[in-house]
Amino acid sequence: MRMIDVIRSKRDGESLSDEQIMYVIKGYTDGSIPDYQMSALLMAIWYQGMDKHETACLTRAMYESGDRVDLSQFGKRTVDKHSTGGVGDKTSVIVLPIVAACGGICAKMSGRGLGHTGGTIDKLESFPGYKTQLSRDDFLNQVSDIGIALIGQSGNLTPADKKLYALRDVTATVDSLPLIASSIMSKKLAAGAHSIVLDVKTGSGAFLKTHKQAKDLAKTMVEIGKAFNRKVCAIITDMDTPLGNTVGNSLEMKEAVEVLMGSGPDDLRQICTVLAVNMLEMSLDISEKQAQERVKSAIKSGAAFDKFCQWIERQGSERIYADDPKLLPTAKNIFEVKSPCSGYISHMNTEAIGICASLLGAGRTVKDAPIDLSAGIVMTKKTRDYVKAGDIIAYLHTSLQDVGEIIQKYISALKFSDICPQTHPLIIDTVKSV
Amino acid sequence: MRMIDVIRSKRDGESLSDEQIMYVIKGYTDGSIPDYQMSALLMAIWYQGMDKHETACLTRAMYESGDRVDLSQFGKRTVDKHSTGGVGDKTSVIVLPIVAACGGICAKMSGRGLGHTGGTIDKLESFPGYKTQLSRDDFLNQVSDIGIALIGQSGNLTPADKKLYALRDVTATVDSLPLIASSIMSKKLAAGAHSIVLDVKTGSGAFLKTHKQAKDLAKTMVEIGKAFNRKVCAIITDMDTPLGNTVGNSLEMKEAVEVLMGSGPDDLRQICTVLAVNMLEMSLDISEKQAQERVKSAIKSGAAFDKFCQWIERQGSERIYADDPKLLPTAKNIFEVKSPCSGYISHMNTEAIGICASLLGAGRTVKDAPIDLSAGIVMTKKTRDYVKAGDIIAYLHTSLQDVGEIIQKYISALKFSDICPQTHPLIIDTVKSV
Repeated sequence: MRMIDVIRSKRDGESLSDEQIMYVIKGYTDGSIPDYQMSALLMAIWYQGMDKHETACLTRAMYESGDRVDLSQFGKRTVDKHSTGGVGDKTSVIVLPIVAACGGICAKMSGRGLGHTGGTIDKLESFPGYKTQLSRDDFLNQVSDIGIALIGQSGNLTPADKKLYALRDVTATVDSLPLIASSIMSKKLAAGAHSIVLDVKTGSGAFLKTHKQAKDLAKTMVEIGKAFNRKVCAIITDMDTPLGNTVGNSLEMKEAVEVLMGSGPDDLRQICTVLAVNMLEMSLDISEKQAQERVKSAIKSGAAFDKFCQWIERQGSERIYADDPKLLPTAKNIFEVKSPCSGYISHMNTEAIGICASLLGAGRTVKDAPIDLSAGIVMTKKTRDYVKAGDIIAYLHTSLQDVGEIIQKYISALKFSDICPQTHPLIIDTVKSV
Repeated sequence: MRMIDVIRSKRDGESLSDEQIMYVIKGYTDGSIPDYQMSALLMAIWYQGMDKHETACLTRAMYESGDRVDLSQFGKRTVDKHSTGGVGDKTSVIVLPIVAACGGICAKMSGRGLGHTGGTIDKLESFPGYKTQLSRDDFLNQVSDIGIALIGQSGNLTPADKKLYALRDVTATVDSLPLIASSIMSKKLAAGAHSIVLDVKTGSGAFLKTHKQAKDLAKTMVEIGKAFNRKVCAIITDMDTPLGNTVGNSLEMKEAVEVLMGSGPDDLRQICTVLAVNMLEMSLDISEKQAQERVKSAIKSGAAFDKFCQWIERQGSERIYADDPKLLPTAKNIFEVKSPCSGYISHMNTEAIGICASLLGAGRTVKDAPIDLSAGIVMTKKTRDYVKAGDIIAYLHTSLQDVGEIIQKYISALKFSDICPQTHPLIIDTVKSV
């Protein structure tokens, strides 16, 4: 088999055979297929797409390219979640202890933030002492003992995806449905959970700007899950406005603790509930109604909050940070952002707001750059709120001295109107395997 | 400027700006843009194409990427020719001395053969002693003294094209009209001639299988020439049947000498005449009729043959090989190919015949591999000829002992019919700048 023939086949719109896909991924992982041929194939895939079978086969090839986590000792109660990324998305930190408190098993790996979206691992490092790396034994023992563990990507999971993602990133081939779907799913499948809930975000703060793109991706990923005999459900949620009232690592962790204690912003609570309910339905094989009751009761009884405390303590931090989140990293300076006019906030460019938080110190534009855990944004007014000129609409937390430009950037990200904009549903659609 | 933005622009169907194209070619030539980004851009160009302006700009960027031959001392009489490649195409060796004998100036660089097509430089090496490399001074002095010189690609001409061509070859992006046109034209422009005649071949033995592809390429190249203030004319010729009766280096040189002496096969004579006439029209600024008369008289008087002898002597060979071509390299073995049936030869798969010649030793499948100058095919029957079963249709010249498979391959390349096939014009179309 020759790589040039594979490139030509895809270029001309043919479906690749299982053998061709296995050959490509094996050869690219072991270095026998060079980057320059792989990038030509990626661009051909960008144009021609891949059918269901090809996408599942590509996922399998990447899934098999490295180690896989074996969670079979926990039976079918293991459940994972994945978000396609947004601004202010701290749901994993809330949803996992809820699910674990209700009997689900959460053995999860997460990433760091890059660009305008944050990463769960960075957020958890706001809790002093939290260890993001555990040995495989410690990880599995913790899951066995308390039903929950969350660490950074570790080991040699899906090395093909790592190499491919880095190449896609510099060759303008990131936004291809089969490539996105196989990248996400190969990682989730290798991480070993039996059930997977996907939070596919759409809108101005998401990678996928339209509902149609989100729905197509959701369907593709659910179909891949089916091909692997895993339970997969995808929930398409709105990311046209930041989720919750905070963006930035320790600010978001304070908000997460609020939700675990039964308060916090409505939108965040609603999405976390839906995610937890779906995770429990699948992992415990119970009805939606039963799952809803368990989630409600886990929060009300304090069981979810206790599970959270148990979790961060077991991973090296202390319960006191959950009991009193004011002890989490705090910014040196807080600047007010005032509304330039009176009216309803009719739209928030959420990607731009994510970039503002990043500029304040909360994010990184280059891999492995240090971040300021205390930096970020607290939004006091969001889409559909009425404001008067001069009202405070947000606070910028930072160690920077001069944030004039960032304030301007934040204000430019907002649109104002005399008319209150229509409400949009927060949960747009759900795709489940039949 | 960032390469990823250039890739994305082209991927999304935008036209690239002059600055973007210059940035890409400069960066790729100096190594600051890696192969894997270039190949993604090449694939995007394969899908999206390039408009006239982009193609001319790409040509200019490649033309300017290295040295250029300065032929200005010869005024506007310098004229070059280029063939897009075929089987049995020995026209340069015939046409150049005709043109030089008539007052045109031919300072030409040619390539070696690869794949199913031969290369002029290999063919000329059939003349013992012929030097394919000359210093720049020797090259220009020879042109000045006798009006003709032909050497291999030398110096640092269009290094961008060299690098790009090697990359296209392994990424399935060779057959893209703007990439083919800019590759050919950047080389021809850098080689310095004021007028250029392009022989664009089409049919089963050519790279471009359809007339439409050939016409589009011809138009594009003529337009590029216009943008550079050079006279360019493209002649679309038939390559659905091998040109002349021989394929293989020294066999083709014998045939070339025959044409220069006024005999040889009709199809080869006809194409050579048309090419020479067009080269003279442009370089000497004379009418078609005047050019035709000069070509006819140059052959009849022996002036063309004398010019040929002068040329190969000046480049290190001897006149005796032209006077008595039997002295050229001769194959150890000659095998007969007999017709398997009676009927008209209705089609010859010319690429397959080129491959047969290559397998006999006349060509190379890998760059820089040695070749057998004496090997090749003499066709005694071609398309439209009537044969009886058992008639000899070709002789295979080779140093191989066993050619059973090649004989089968040769016979499989032919189609037979009870009806004599229609004639096809040899000269299909001509495209000139207005």
